[in-house]
Amino acid sequence: MTHPLFEKHQATLQGALQAIATRGYWSPYAEMPSSKAYGETAADDGKRAYEAHLGRHFELQQPGQTGWIGHEASPYGGSLNVRYPQCDHEALVAAGAAAMPAWQAVGAEGRTGICLEMLARLNQQSFELGHAVMMTTGQGWMMAFQAGAPHAQDRGLEAVAYAWREQSFVPAESTWEKPQGKNPPLVMKKQFEIVGRGVALVVGCGTFPTWNTYPGLFAALATGNAVIVKPHSNAILPAAITVATLRKVLAENGIDPNLVTLCVTDDRAVTQALATHAGIRSVDFTGSNVFGQWLIDHCKQAQVYAELAGVNNIVIDSTDAYKTMLGNLAFTLSLYSGQMCTTTQVIFVPANGIDTDEGHKSYDEVCADLGAAITRFLSKPEVACAVLGAIQSDATQGRIELANSGALGRVVLASQSIANAEFPNAAVRTPVLLACDAVDESAYMEERFGPISFVVKVADTAAGLALSERVVREHGALTVGLYSTRDEVIDAMTAATWRGKVALSINLTSGVFVNQSSAYSDYHGTGGNPSANASYSDSAFVANRFRVVQRRRHV
Amino acid sequence: MTHPLFEKHQATLQGALQAIATRGYWSPYAEMPSSKAYGETAADDGKRAYEAHLGRHFELQQPGQTGWIGHEASPYGGSLNVRYPQCDHEALVAAGAAAMPAWQAVGAEGRTGICLEMLARLNQQSFELGHAVMMTTGQGWMMAFQAGAPHAQDRGLEAVAYAWREQSFVPAESTWEKPQGKNPPLVMKKQFEIVGRGVALVVGCGTFPTWNTYPGLFAALATGNAVIVKPHSNAILPAAITVATLRKVLAENGIDPNLVTLCVTDDRAVTQALATHAGIRSVDFTGSNVFGQWLIDHCKQAQVYAELAGVNNIVIDSTDAYKTMLGNLAFTLSLYSGQMCTTTQVIFVPANGIDTDEGHKSYDEVCADLGAAITRFLSKPEVACAVLGAIQSDATQGRIELANSGALGRVVLASQSIANAEFPNAAVRTPVLLACDAVDESAYMEERFGPISFVVKVADTAAGLALSERVVREHGALTVGLYSTRDEVIDAMTAATWRGKVALSINLTSGVFVNQSSAYSDYHGTGGNPSANASYSDSAFVANRFRVVQRRRHV
Repeated sequence: MTHPLFEKHQATLQGALQAIATRGYWSPYAEMPSSKAYGETAADDGKRAYEAHLGRHFELQQPGQTGWIGHEASPYGGSLNVRYPQCDHEALVAAGAAAMPAWQAVGAEGRTGICLEMLARLNQQSFELGHAVMMTTGQGWMMAFQAGAPHAQDRGLEAVAYAWREQSFVPAESTWEKPQGKNPPLVMKKQFEIVGRGVALVVGCGTFPTWNTYPGLFAALATGNAVIVKPHSNAILPAAITVATLRKVLAENGIDPNLVTLCVTDDRAVTQALATHAGIRSVDFTGSNVFGQWLIDHCKQAQVYAELAGVNNIVIDSTDAYKTMLGNLAFTLSLYSGQMCTTTQVIFVPANGIDTDEGHKSYDEVCADLGAAITRFLSKPEVACAVLGAIQSDATQGRIELANSGALGRVVLASQSIANAEFPNAAVRTPVLLACDAVDESAYMEERFGPISFVVKVADTAAGLALSERVVREHGALTVGLYSTRDEVIDAMTAATWRGKVALSINLTSGVFVNQSSAYSDYHGTGGNPSANASYSDSAFVANRFRVVQRRRHV
Repeated sequence: MTHPLFEKHQATLQGALQAIATRGYWSPYAEMPSSKAYGETAADDGKRAYEAHLGRHFELQQPGQTGWIGHEASPYGGSLNVRYPQCDHEALVAAGAAAMPAWQAVGAEGRTGICLEMLARLNQQSFELGHAVMMTTGQGWMMAFQAGAPHAQDRGLEAVAYAWREQSFVPAESTWEKPQGKNPPLVMKKQFEIVGRGVALVVGCGTFPTWNTYPGLFAALATGNAVIVKPHSNAILPAAITVATLRKVLAENGIDPNLVTLCVTDDRAVTQALATHAGIRSVDFTGSNVFGQWLIDHCKQAQVYAELAGVNNIVIDSTDAYKTMLGNLAFTLSLYSGQMCTTTQVIFVPANGIDTDEGHKSYDEVCADLGAAITRFLSKPEVACAVLGAIQSDATQGRIELANSGALGRVVLASQSIANAEFPNAAVRTPVLLACDAVDESAYMEERFGPISFVVKVADTAAGLALSERVVREHGALTVGLYSTRDEVIDAMTAATWRGKVALSINLTSGVFVNQSSAYSDYHGTGGNPSANASYSDSAFVANRFRVVQRRRHV
């Protein structure tokens, strides 16, 4: 008997399966915050729902609660004053493990149906989630709505589709009949049970608390595991809203809601104890190399899926669209003040300059023109504030000051503060653009998270390609780009990205940007360079989250 | 244009894909060493081909050769006197890496076709491989032929089928077209390249030099990687024959044969240097917990797929077929003198005995009856020699002596030496059966590889189930079994195996044995308990051996 929610959401599942197979554009979740898509009252309702959380205790009815915790400060100024349950992590692990057998028993169809219902319900909360993401991360509204709600839901659905596809290959049972010559055949009945690996821990980051959390969360859930979500201490609310909805959907379907819990802690030792707990069998992590590597080194009992830092880069060889190239780059460097794991940090430009449709441009001209393009793009304060958002952390502020000081390279364009009329306490900063030489590796060859980019002078295009490949191999990258009018350069860069295992964007000049990836179509991370050991999403992201346990007997 | 070998072997591939999806019985490789299947002269030709290797240098034309190495001693007595190329491991890694781009370029269809051709050619060498496996491992002839040739080929083909299935999901390219309201859509062309993770190392074991090597070898190859095969120092010849054939097929198809090489070394330090080499990106290992754990702990640069030791066990609650149960167990404990990673080591029997179709049997009666069944089964020397084979290592001999001494428990049946008429120097040993109490954990709760088994007295069936589950969780197991006439006991054991993640065989009394697993149908290992972190085969065994590298540009 098929689970009713598996039936209900069949069209969505089939759409997602088709999309991951063909990798064209597709989404069931409207990305524009429009009343047409979400209903006349959705915007107001969602804002009110968000505001209703402020200054309140966020009830979750989780086991092992010992108190209340939480002190999120908004990058837009002020405190959210939301308090979350503080729970003994041992109690959360035990409760998750206890909830797993019933989740196993509902089967892959049941789990898939319930996960699809969760995503549909989260989609209905898109405005509420958008405001929560905006105010905790400092993203501009449009980005917070899109990346925080429908695009995050897309990445969750993508993981559910992959998980379903892999699980659907495992037959519930089979009859094995082996001929024995003239004797009767050997006949056995075999049964195959999909069993979750064990309680999963999903550690969120401060900048994309839903987009980077939903893939691991839904991949683990759909494959039969309990999940403990451990949000970044400054971006708890989007995770809490998500967990509350998931718990509600579970309870509605007769599943113990403690299958999904929220673990809020300020104490790194608690996170470490949780991550290395014998009962935790997978860890999804987005964040710093230091803690990510600690997890990989120490969580021997768990599969670790980590997205870490990298040094994203672009090689400019030549272009037949100089102006739109600069415009595309200006947007990329400005969006969310470069606080994206996919933002370009290094732009390699030949010392002798580049050929363009506007004639030859020297290295210095390229630097100056890119700086001017950024300045022009951000010239209207309301556009600037909408695109830049606010600086999420003091550490990023510090990195901006360091770059502005000239200590890392010649300042082509200094970062400036911009006043945000709506949020006077928001830290709004424009990008800082630096120029340096290829030999200045200590400056540009480590991740400097935030709106800090380098135009690096290389001997020639070949040197740029080689340096790009080395950066990817040694430091990792989620994205690289190339601008060139020459096929042989495009081919050489393509081969370099195969060796270095990084996604390549070629000659982006219009409304697609190197720092954006589109669910179902673009793999986010290859899992093959130091910036990430996994990809959103591919078969490897889901296939090892469950195991098949068989039994057999004579018929 | 489809690769001709992909076309040629399409029926085999489709058969394998169907088999892994339905998990019924299937094989394209005849398991009987018959002239009908393999040709009138196959037996003689194969034996001569094997004998032609003896006392000779095994030429492979590999890079970095510095000399000759090898001194395999046959468990059947005497030395093989075959010398193999000793090659600098750095040269092998470099040559493998250099061969990979062309292997990538041939694409998933080409790689799959060439792998299928390799398997077909190995199948033609089944008699040669059977003799090589027999004489290096000490397996009896029939087992050496079957497990060493067709069944190993089945496991290789199974891995190729999984690898093809996963790779076939990745489209070569797509058109991504995103609507932009009233504006023209954004249109991008995206291309997706399947790229092998990097040079693979496959470390073989001394008892199953092909069956345990082919899954990793073919999984890595089919997904685009070079492979270095590092055989056990006493079972080199089967690996060398395999590598020579693979290199021949590669060369015939215009691929650099150095894609597949043999690394023979007696020096653990060389193996360690190879396994931790920055250029080695996956390691498949079958062998001891000590070295397996070393690999898992130290090979940070590589994916490690390890099959280690475990404590396989059976719970006897009751039976309606006492005699055939004992016969089934006697065969399991005797086959290849228990030198299988799947052989039962511990049999839990309630202190109050068991109900059977022949009346109630006390614990002591079960012990004695099982001992008698083994004695009866091995009463004819020619049957005994064919089933037992020879003891593969001195360490196993030592463990037999220790068990025979009574130091590990009461000796129900002592191991005896049997003379092998054909091979007078063969070390042929019958199983030793011990009795002990559940509290004597230090005796039975570690792997004692070889023909050493314990009938462990437990308080009752429930205690046996609990102990079985704990053994699986703490020490791992590739197989567990149950004999019971009661549904509630079967259900309880089933649930325990879901928690412990181990394959269960129920009431085996005829021609299927707990230590046998059938390719395409039985998962060998679940990858979810300490005995193995991977399974032959499932999607997880192949999906992370390749990465997808995309590129995109505006149309």
